[in-house]
Amino acid sequence: MAIELYWGSGSPFAWRVMLTLEVKRLPYESKLLEFSKQEHKTPAYLQLNPRGKVPTLKDGDFVLYESIAIMAYLDRKYPTPPIFGTTAEQTGLIWRLVLECESYLLGAGDKVVRPLFFGKGLENVNEIQTAAELIRRELKIVDERLADSNWLVGGEISAADTAIFPLVQLLLRAAGKEAARPLDLGLVPLSQTFPNIARWVRRIEELPNYQRTYPPHWRE
Amino acid sequence: MAIELYWGSGSPFAWRVMLTLEVKRLPYESKLLEFSKQEHKTPAYLQLNPRGKVPTLKDGDFVLYESIAIMAYLDRKYPTPPIFGTTAEQTGLIWRLVLECESYLLGAGDKVVRPLFFGKGLENVNEIQTAAELIRRELKIVDERLADSNWLVGGEISAADTAIFPLVQLLLRAAGKEAARPLDLGLVPLSQTFPNIARWVRRIEELPNYQRTYPPHWRE
Repeated sequence: MAIELYWGSGSPFAWRVMLTLEVKRLPYESKLLEFSKQEHKTPAYLQLNPRGKVPTLKDGDFVLYESIAIMAYLDRKYPTPPIFGTTAEQTGLIWRLVLECESYLLGAGDKVVRPLFFGKGLENVNEIQTAAELIRRELKIVDERLADSNWLVGGEISAADTAIFPLVQLLLRAAGKEAARPLDLGLVPLSQTFPNIARWVRRIEELPNYQRTYPPHWRE
Repeated sequence: MAIELYWGSGSPFAWRVMLTLEVKRLPYESKLLEFSKQEHKTPAYLQLNPRGKVPTLKDGDFVLYESIAIMAYLDRKYPTPPIFGTTAEQTGLIWRLVLECESYLLGAGDKVVRPLFFGKGLENVNEIQTAAELIRRELKIVDERLADSNWLVGGEISAADTAIFPLVQLLLRAAGKEAARPLDLGLVPLSQTFPNIARWVRRIEELPNYQRTYPPHWRE
């Protein structure tokens, strides 16, 4: 039975899993849910994922949610190419970066992305700028790791790259909005603020089938 | 070279790793840092862990921080007994529970534990009670999983158990404080609120060497 992926356009969590599926060259059936139609809150979907979030993966009879758990599952089930490293040390570093993304970048990112995408809370300039400072600190760590290396850990793309990349894209999209200009977030142009990340973004954008993972509504 | 663990008394993150080391029966050198003396902020420690947090693990020359990353590292380096499952499906479920703990239980737990431990913000009753409601919802999921099973996933103790347990202990300690009574958190007595979790807590407390992982200042 084919893998089915329930996702929504622009969800960085779903995007991680789509990138993982492409890196592992796993075919899957795309189940795109329309957030605007509340398709992630229907009784049928809540049966699969009681939290009513995306992504959810269905692999035969097995159903799993939480993006990073799905990545760990896929790596165990379909180990080639490995995305959690080939040595214990690489595994540890990859997980460190993934979890630092969850613990630090994600929360701060939300405080910048949400007001810029939805226009709510844009008046809380101090809060947004404090979050932007945290984001810059986290991105600096990422940028430094990429100074001498194409990928965040080891010589190949790993879960660290696919987990963090969609958040970076979200931040760039938010920072590029008209309303971001007076906020002085210090995030763009990326080629000047974080040049190694800029090159890494292009590297990921050049992956085969990257375009299939790109949020459809961002093209509009 | 021996494993060295830098930890602090009462840190649930350090506790996770100590439990993991005991489950894997790995000997380690204990490096207890005194938070009150800011020993986690010394230049020497910041060299090991620039975030100035605990735990940090040193295994020979390899240094790693972020508790869950350390657990993943230990499991890869010392695979017996496995703590991330023996099948891909178990791996996925264990990671789901670990990451749900990070994404939901941890943030809500902080909003209850911090005021009760440090006395600051106790007047924000609504906020604390809203957090307690979230906590009860998350604990209900945990409790239901333990209805027919000794451990959260599969037949053996796993990273899901060792990751979540210290947070439950922290919540119980907070909920048992005098100042918690008027807040009506609905968490204790655990044997009535979440009876399966209560049995699971006792099961973990009966593990060999559990006492070595118990926060020393909690005995005082």
